[in-house]
Amino acid sequence: MNLLSSVLLTDRYELTMAQAYLAQGMTGEAVFEFFVRKLPPRRNFFMAAGLEQVLDYLEAFHFSPEDIAWLEQTDGFSPAFLASLREMRFVGAVHAVPEGTIVFPHEPILRVTAPLPQAQLIETRVMNLLNFQTMIASKACRSVLVAGHRPLIDFGLRRSHGAEAGLFAARAAYLAGFTGTSNVLAGARFATPTYGTMAHSFVQAFEDEATAFEHFARTQPHNVVLLIDTYDTEAAAAKVVALAARLKEQGITIHGVRLDSGDLADHAHKVRTILDRGGLTETKILASGNLDEDRVQALVTGQAPIDSFAVGTAMTTSSDAPSLDCAYKLQEYAGRPCRKRSEGKATWPGRKQVYRHFGTDGRLSSDVVTVEGDPQQGHPLLVQVMRGGRRLAPSPSLTEVRRQAGSSLAQLPEPLRQLGIAVPYEVRIAPALAELAQKVDLRT
Amino acid sequence: MNLLSSVLLTDRYELTMAQAYLAQGMTGEAVFEFFVRKLPPRRNFFMAAGLEQVLDYLEAFHFSPEDIAWLEQTDGFSPAFLASLREMRFVGAVHAVPEGTIVFPHEPILRVTAPLPQAQLIETRVMNLLNFQTMIASKACRSVLVAGHRPLIDFGLRRSHGAEAGLFAARAAYLAGFTGTSNVLAGARFATPTYGTMAHSFVQAFEDEATAFEHFARTQPHNVVLLIDTYDTEAAAAKVVALAARLKEQGITIHGVRLDSGDLADHAHKVRTILDRGGLTETKILASGNLDEDRVQALVTGQAPIDSFAVGTAMTTSSDAPSLDCAYKLQEYAGRPCRKRSEGKATWPGRKQVYRHFGTDGRLSSDVVTVEGDPQQGHPLLVQVMRGGRRLAPSPSLTEVRRQAGSSLAQLPEPLRQLGIAVPYEVRIAPALAELAQKVDLRT
Repeated sequence: MNLLSSVLLTDRYELTMAQAYLAQGMTGEAVFEFFVRKLPPRRNFFMAAGLEQVLDYLEAFHFSPEDIAWLEQTDGFSPAFLASLREMRFVGAVHAVPEGTIVFPHEPILRVTAPLPQAQLIETRVMNLLNFQTMIASKACRSVLVAGHRPLIDFGLRRSHGAEAGLFAARAAYLAGFTGTSNVLAGARFATPTYGTMAHSFVQAFEDEATAFEHFARTQPHNVVLLIDTYDTEAAAAKVVALAARLKEQGITIHGVRLDSGDLADHAHKVRTILDRGGLTETKILASGNLDEDRVQALVTGQAPIDSFAVGTAMTTSSDAPSLDCAYKLQEYAGRPCRKRSEGKATWPGRKQVYRHFGTDGRLSSDVVTVEGDPQQGHPLLVQVMRGGRRLAPSPSLTEVRRQAGSSLAQLPEPLRQLGIAVPYEVRIAPALAELAQKVDLRT
Repeated sequence: MNLLSSVLLTDRYELTMAQAYLAQGMTGEAVFEFFVRKLPPRRNFFMAAGLEQVLDYLEAFHFSPEDIAWLEQTDGFSPAFLASLREMRFVGAVHAVPEGTIVFPHEPILRVTAPLPQAQLIETRVMNLLNFQTMIASKACRSVLVAGHRPLIDFGLRRSHGAEAGLFAARAAYLAGFTGTSNVLAGARFATPTYGTMAHSFVQAFEDEATAFEHFARTQPHNVVLLIDTYDTEAAAAKVVALAARLKEQGITIHGVRLDSGDLADHAHKVRTILDRGGLTETKILASGNLDEDRVQALVTGQAPIDSFAVGTAMTTSSDAPSLDCAYKLQEYAGRPCRKRSEGKATWPGRKQVYRHFGTDGRLSSDVVTVEGDPQQGHPLLVQVMRGGRRLAPSPSLTEVRRQAGSSLAQLPEPLRQLGIAVPYEVRIAPALAELAQKVDLRT
């Protein structure tokens, strides 16, 4: 059994509620929507991601005999309920915004239409999957926007929140425009390019740094990137120059050096000078070490001679906003639109669609959220991707999604591309939706 | 294949370096230590957690035929290296601080002694596992310290960073003193008690709130906890009183109500009054909704009549500090102690032990870090738990670890138990360790 793919990865109340619905015969059609309530501080947009994993989950949704056996020996679940779980497969429909699309608060990213008990049972994992990858892709975009043409590599696995976080963060970052990842499993699973250099431990394991460099270069002649900050960065750069001369005779080139500590801009200038004077004008400088989009931007605008950046923990944990204020809310049951009115957490009722408008420059100008079937100008964002629990078509490849994400970023108005907070993008509520909300409020 | 248990969940450079070590015949004994460099802002201590999963990982460590097949078709790995990976099992020793122990910066939490290529290859996942659970247990302790006798429930799965994060966060929180979790899989896997109430969607799915409450109570007569903030909290509390009278005739009791939005203290006072006047003095109030240790403390010190707290996202993401500044560093290779001197990231060389001193009140008074074999007063924290790649003894049960963690928290000096930052706890470097560092520096 693949432990983590168990549908028991859910909140207990989903099971409790499903039992109550089934006991009452409440298996009518329910419509839930997933959306984010508000932007984190210093964010101007989200990038939708994680749909692929949601569809995988829904297609595979079933309770295994082990799952049922465990539930049987806990309190609170009736034999009739467990019997219905045994047979349950997800048979609903899914409408969603394609991965890589720019989205804003209160715009539905995903809509589930399914018999109420099923639509409820999947809540926790659907949220868990969409919250994480949307959060990471949105964070990764910020580094992509400031790095320009310079490659960005994900180095965050060691401090990602467990195995799945590391794997999906690598996927979301690549989708958002990163060049690749250090994560080998992401390479195996998602065909993301993988990159790696050496650790300080490698340098330390040898009696001296120069020997470590030389040995590494001879063993990995096709990818020689040397970490030069273990003891003294500039002294190490000089050793690289000396080594390059010896290696040249054997046709081995030193492709790059990595800086991982101290004042990266200062070291980069000094190292660039040492390398250039030594004739190593083609040797690249990779920077790493507690980088985030702000530090990358400072290095880029300060014209530090850095060719590529490895961004780790800050990206894979979305350190400044490690969760989204997201929700998966019942918007309609058995043909009756509904809404929650809890203080500060009210939602818009009904099945919704988002229409996007573009300016003459091809950039996003405003969105309108309305009820499905209310004709509007603009490009509709939600498309149906699943019917009867099966994908309508094979998912686009990750490469294709990444290309689309790049186009989406290019369509962002300039103010939204900045790291600082911009005037919020205009998202209007259409009259038809406002009227529906009023009607619902009068009823309850 | 359980995808996430693949040893390809590692950084590419671990493989690159292992190949270089093996090519050079560098299979001598390496000593790596895992530690945290510094406390996050507003933290006074860490609680060690995650060792159990590290030992599981090391005992199961092997490259599957699928792993090898994937590596074969990538560039950069030689047939000789892949052949050695095929046979590789972890045969090293592990010394560690028991889970649930209080630790401080620069104190080794885990030490690995193994042939260099193996000790290197496990780096990424060992860090990934220890960083996460230590971070979560340390965060969860803070709620435990302020909640007093009031039960705390983990509600964070939906915004945890993926499946494994949700599962291990539930474990780490329980270990630190939480009463249980909403996460059903954590119950199945770790026997943590599971709890659940109802969602807003349940209330919305019915035509009216009172019907939803009544139906829920009749279906779940042994655990009736009603969510009362979907529309109007106090109006819902009045409905609960009315319902209780009807249910009483059938022997059904309303155990509790949940508040999830608005001013929780204000609502709790009003709801308590309504319940008490209605004779429901035994009905408990559970609070949830963006709670963290600061809000829990404010509610407790403000004497809000809240009986238990559900803490979610803030705990499972360690929102104020979503990573630890942790490291896994080579401290000795082939009998030669070594250290890294990178700016701001220097480490102490050699195999180390930590000795803890207690005051006459039984509370922690100071620690000393020294080289292994340097006799010191006090209680040594690191104990050997693995030899030849196998556990020396079965791990303590999670219940036992939780009990030990509770004792550890009780031994914290009062200032360290506060949420605000305290005068740092004293961790001395013994003369023997300082001398060793000097010797190493002279050599390189």
